[in-house]
Amino acid sequence: MSNTFGNIFRLTTYGESHGVAVGGIIDGVPAGLELDLDFIQSELDRRRPGQSAITTGRNEGDRVEFLSGVYEGRCTGTPLAFEVRNTNQHSNDYDEMKSVFRPSHADYTYTAKYGFRDHRGGGRSSARETLSRVVGGAVAKLALKQLGISVQAYTSQVGNLVVGKSYQELDLSLTESNAVRCPDVELAAQMEELIKQVKQDGDTIGGVITCVAKGVPVGLGEPAFGKLHAMLGNAMLSINACKGFEYGMGFAGVGLRGSQVNDIFTGKNGKIGTLTNYSGGIQGGISNGEDIYFRCAFKPIATLLREQPTVDLNGNDACIKARGRHDPCVLPRAVPIVEAMAAMTLLDAYLMNKCTHI
Amino acid sequence: MSNTFGNIFRLTTYGESHGVAVGGIIDGVPAGLELDLDFIQSELDRRRPGQSAITTGRNEGDRVEFLSGVYEGRCTGTPLAFEVRNTNQHSNDYDEMKSVFRPSHADYTYTAKYGFRDHRGGGRSSARETLSRVVGGAVAKLALKQLGISVQAYTSQVGNLVVGKSYQELDLSLTESNAVRCPDVELAAQMEELIKQVKQDGDTIGGVITCVAKGVPVGLGEPAFGKLHAMLGNAMLSINACKGFEYGMGFAGVGLRGSQVNDIFTGKNGKIGTLTNYSGGIQGGISNGEDIYFRCAFKPIATLLREQPTVDLNGNDACIKARGRHDPCVLPRAVPIVEAMAAMTLLDAYLMNKCTHI
Amino acid sequence: MSNTFGNIFRLTTYGESHGVAVGGIIDGVPAGLELDLDFIQSELDRRRPGQSAITTGRNEGDRVEFLSGVYEGRCTGTPLAFEVRNTNQHSNDYDEMKSVFRPSHADYTYTAKYGFRDHRGGGRSSARETLSRVVGGAVAKLALKQLGISVQAYTSQVGNLVVGKSYQELDLSLTESNAVRCPDVELAAQMEELIKQVKQDGDTIGGVITCVAKGVPVGLGEPAFGKLHAMLGNAMLSINACKGFEYGMGFAGVGLRGSQVNDIFTGKNGKIGTLTNYSGGIQGGISNGEDIYFRCAFKPIATLLREQPTVDLNGNDACIKARGRHDPCVLPRAVPIVEAMAAMTLLDAYLMNKCTHI
Amino acid sequence: MSNTFGNIFRLTTYGESHGVAVGGIIDGVPAGLELDLDFIQSELDRRRPGQSAITTGRNEGDRVEFLSGVYEGRCTGTPLAFEVRNTNQHSNDYDEMKSVFRPSHADYTYTAKYGFRDHRGGGRSSARETLSRVVGGAVAKLALKQLGISVQAYTSQVGNLVVGKSYQELDLSLTESNAVRCPDVELAAQMEELIKQVKQDGDTIGGVITCVAKGVPVGLGEPAFGKLHAMLGNAMLSINACKGFEYGMGFAGVGLRGSQVNDIFTGKNGKIGTLTNYSGGIQGGISNGEDIYFRCAFKPIATLLREQPTVDLNGNDACIKARGRHDPCVLPRAVPIVEAMAAMTLLDAYLMNKCTHI
Repeated sequence: MSNTFGNIFRLTTYGESHGVAVGGIIDGVPAGLELDLDFIQSELDRRRPGQSAITTGRNEGDRVEFLSGVYEGRCTGTPLAFEVRNTNQHSNDYDEMKSVFRPSHADYTYTAKYGFRDHRGGGRSSARETLSRVVGGAVAKLALKQLGISVQAYTSQVGNLVVGKSYQELDLSLTESNAVRCPDVELAAQMEELIKQVKQDGDTIGGVITCVAKGVPVGLGEPAFGKLHAMLGNAMLSINACKGFEYGMGFAGVGLRGSQVNDIFTGKNGKIGTLTNYSGGIQGGISNGEDIYFRCAFKPIATLLREQPTVDLNGNDACIKARGRHDPCVLPRAVPIVEAMAAMTLLDAYLMNKCTHI
Repeated sequence: MSNTFGNIFRLTTYGESHGVAVGGIIDGVPAGLELDLDFIQSELDRRRPGQSAITTGRNEGDRVEFLSGVYEGRCTGTPLAFEVRNTNQHSNDYDEMKSVFRPSHADYTYTAKYGFRDHRGGGRSSARETLSRVVGGAVAKLALKQLGISVQAYTSQVGNLVVGKSYQELDLSLTESNAVRCPDVELAAQMEELIKQVKQDGDTIGGVITCVAKGVPVGLGEPAFGKLHAMLGNAMLSINACKGFEYGMGFAGVGLRGSQVNDIFTGKNGKIGTLTNYSGGIQGGISNGEDIYFRCAFKPIATLLREQPTVDLNGNDACIKARGRHDPCVLPRAVPIVEAMAAMTLLDAYLMNKCTHI
Repeated sequence: MSNTFGNIFRLTTYGESHGVAVGGIIDGVPAGLELDLDFIQSELDRRRPGQSAITTGRNEGDRVEFLSGVYEGRCTGTPLAFEVRNTNQHSNDYDEMKSVFRPSHADYTYTAKYGFRDHRGGGRSSARETLSRVVGGAVAKLALKQLGISVQAYTSQVGNLVVGKSYQELDLSLTESNAVRCPDVELAAQMEELIKQVKQDGDTIGGVITCVAKGVPVGLGEPAFGKLHAMLGNAMLSINACKGFEYGMGFAGVGLRGSQVNDIFTGKNGKIGTLTNYSGGIQGGISNGEDIYFRCAFKPIATLLREQPTVDLNGNDACIKARGRHDPCVLPRAVPIVEAMAAMTLLDAYLMNKCTHI
Repeated sequence: MSNTFGNIFRLTTYGESHGVAVGGIIDGVPAGLELDLDFIQSELDRRRPGQSAITTGRNEGDRVEFLSGVYEGRCTGTPLAFEVRNTNQHSNDYDEMKSVFRPSHADYTYTAKYGFRDHRGGGRSSARETLSRVVGGAVAKLALKQLGISVQAYTSQVGNLVVGKSYQELDLSLTESNAVRCPDVELAAQMEELIKQVKQDGDTIGGVITCVAKGVPVGLGEPAFGKLHAMLGNAMLSINACKGFEYGMGFAGVGLRGSQVNDIFTGKNGKIGTLTNYSGGIQGGISNGEDIYFRCAFKPIATLLREQPTVDLNGNDACIKARGRHDPCVLPRAVPIVEAMAAMTLLDAYLMNKCTHI
């Protein structure tokens, strides 16, 4: 169960950082969907390391190959399998990690759970696993596009640099204009500077990603345990380094009163909507037709390019200083991953909702 | 899928506020477990309305009856079914809601999704559904107790009244000493006053619940999509009115650097542990043996005892003022629900982990 | 997983023979469906013991009560819970079975698996569990009826008395005209005589049930592991005492050649069909629009009203002679159960198929 | 759901006959298991076409490559991905099938369900999909071997040539000594002759495969809907061309009386067993420690090398004569597939059973 995401539109992933390949199988792809390979590759390129001075210097070509489920350019309704062969690994960079545990990384828990681990490049716990999610998300986006649903994420905080405006006040088309993926272009420049500084220090820094889905029809999500925001929260928290999730007014709303944050309905033009959107587009776990928006907290990456005390496999004191090529900040590359998980979740909820009536 | 929670230890719930009964079926209960009915009822009593001046005045007796899966006091390994018959409903209090939508409630989305709804008492969207979760959680707690795992939640914020201490600095045994379920007894008194004031205003207020699990063994949680914190987040976000979830350092940690928040390993006494616990007891999605702690944001309840503008089924302007008996603040009664969801999640993860090796 | 059936239309059951009640929860019921309680009770009556001289003399009233999911006569889209309280149990009849194992019954395997068992009336392994299936099936039939799909089963063999005609040659409306539920009325009389004789001998006898589904649209069933006949086979083999399943030409077809049994397509009236139907209405795991038909083998019931050698809990030699009221032949009462499982399977496949396209 | 098999040990497959590759992902592989690649390839070789004069002349090299989940020869507990690249396809052989439907094949139902289909080599409905099952089954066998469980299948009937002996009376080590995979060597020779004759006629023929599992511990299988034989039946019926499944005495037992077929318990040597095994090693859906045996009916393959009437995409009369390389009889190559599905089912049931107790 642990490597499959979704109920009807389902992505199963595999792959370790320094194994032969990473990839996955997408089941439940709507039959007849045109598979726009250029778009999928372009999404993957957004996640790719080595895009700028503030991401890891690893140069991963990462070309996706589809192995099944497509005929004459259209999805046949059978599973789409895809893979990205691993190349350019420097496994030796990780030799030291074979017998010691990086603080706050998955090294220790994997070893304790499974009895041993593939330590090279972080093995299965590597962020390289998210590559498969971006492919799955890109396929979902193609279907969502036909349904008039869009999903856009952006970096809204790095360290203590916080975007002060709401998503409505921003021009989201500027998100891709800078390396940080922040539509507030001036702040983006400061964020870049901060990340560069952190990198120079051999350190890392966290941040927040905000995501907005527009065009979601009323009715997606299920009562009790399939609430749309619980599905979204589960999706986001499954991304490496994500420590928190909130939607609508989130944690900020707990200090307020019901009379301040209830969204009043209005029936203008024969269509029911709300005057405000503190609910974040979801009421009772079901989409209400307004924009869905949420925020994800990402911690500073655990792997530091500086010395840290730790223990070895036997619990003896040791020291570790990562070599190799690591991101100082996960945010820029996590933006397309957040979008991908959101897209798959929304498509899955859409398909589930088709079964509400005969 | 939407009314079933869990993978191996699975709770399926049913029931509307003013239907015949609410209840559920628990599958995957460990065989031989002694079913302590008094404990289960006592957990249910913690959730019961009418406990104090700051909760709803509804007097719900809520006696749970088990229908199967127990023989001579022990669980047989077959499904446990249980129910609580609904009594003392005042369905007439809800007549007005049949044709108008409460702002920020599930009234509109249920109607839009299903074509109609049982409006009495909120129907399926009523918090009465959580009753079944408390029973499921109580059964899970009985199993966890045998494994040396405890789960404790408490109110850590109401409105802008915030508990300033960490859970380690508090005496959690004081949680049940006051109506708010806040172990900071002085602050609890202020919180009570605030809630009473809010109630007098016909208004509602939100807050935060913190939860701690101790004694969780290393190794629970699965990579990729079964990360332990994603399971917990999904569980919490499925609770009515929950708008956010964070674990470990959560949102507060995003402004910090890796070197500030990495948890250094130590091998004292032949047992590997960490000096700090910013990770919240979970690394790479897998428990590391330290305390697991997380926080849940609860919004102010949508139903107000004051007049609000809204629309009716046809989108025409209308006005609504709830009658009946409603909580001004969800926090006090949500504490046992948070614990219940956490307990079920941890037991499920424990059982899944048994399959890691032959 | 073991007590839930189905993917989208899902039945979860509970209950032991001499527990408080048997019942279940049906999730995924199409919203708006009218719940015809009289029809559901009438289906349950078809399964009821004590209907005739050839079934058990137990007089189980078995009135079903619905607890949720219905409002003003229509299903709300939320879970339907139902229960039948157990009455008229003679638990003392089973005292002897507490410490010895009935040959070929589930007594031994339950004890070995779970460590102990509720021996009264067979506990969870009792055929009383199928009561919940009949309720689930009746709800499914209500939905199928709207879709123009019918499901009819009948007894086609008891002992060595075999109905010689195909289902097309029989008048299936005669099925309910006799206690055996065999539409070949003359043979039915012989079957009744045989069962009476077997009963007098304190023995039991097996047989075959044939089932036909008409009006199934093209396209139900999924490739690979969700083949429609595999779903049906799984459903039937989950019924107590079912030892075999075959569809279309089944085992009889293995001796023939492809040229003899291939179903030739024809395009009369602009509608593609087949001239013959050796395929049993399913090709490549997907319904082709022709009648679906299959056969289920039921073994003679294990519980005999005569003395049999066996062992006790410690493996020592013992002797057992069942007291109480037991069926000499499962067939007559299994007919509605086969129909119920088929109906739920077809509705589930129908709902899954809705997700094939956006 | 349709392309994933299993609950805890889970195989997800993909691939079309003339696509880029076929393969799959195995999740839930026990950590630490040594992955014997030679054994896995040897199992695949048993399924390979072109092994003898009685199978298809296609020469499929079919080398399996593992892409993940293995480190230093042992399974890491993370998903095993594998693939076999498709080579040597003669897609032109299938040009004619693009617009006409082969009788009794999946051509029509796929087209009707999905709106179009990849007709080349049968696309997803090709038996080439079973290649992934054999790999999954081989991995399962490696785990079962450590548990002392073996699975052996053999051809027990081709056309009307039926092996007269029970599996106990046969020397199953002779199964691989002939092309038909029948341990009755003399009958095997006749079967070969029959298949050759059928092939010469451009026709096909069906048969039966018997399978035996030894060493299965008591307790595998779950009550109600997870009965071990229902899991096995579902597994077998998911294999292409399988039309029926029976276990233990199966259909043959329906004519007998309970007193004739009840398996009497015996407690020799402090171990409870049965004197006979009409139950087929499963009682109440749970393994009882005796041998598990079952039989699967395979129809004659639908694709004939002779002319057959049919219709085209528009329902107009047409004619089809397959070119290319097709099996005259599925049995010999289905033997390892039956074993593979049985092995995966038993390992899955074993892992599920681990969760019965804390």
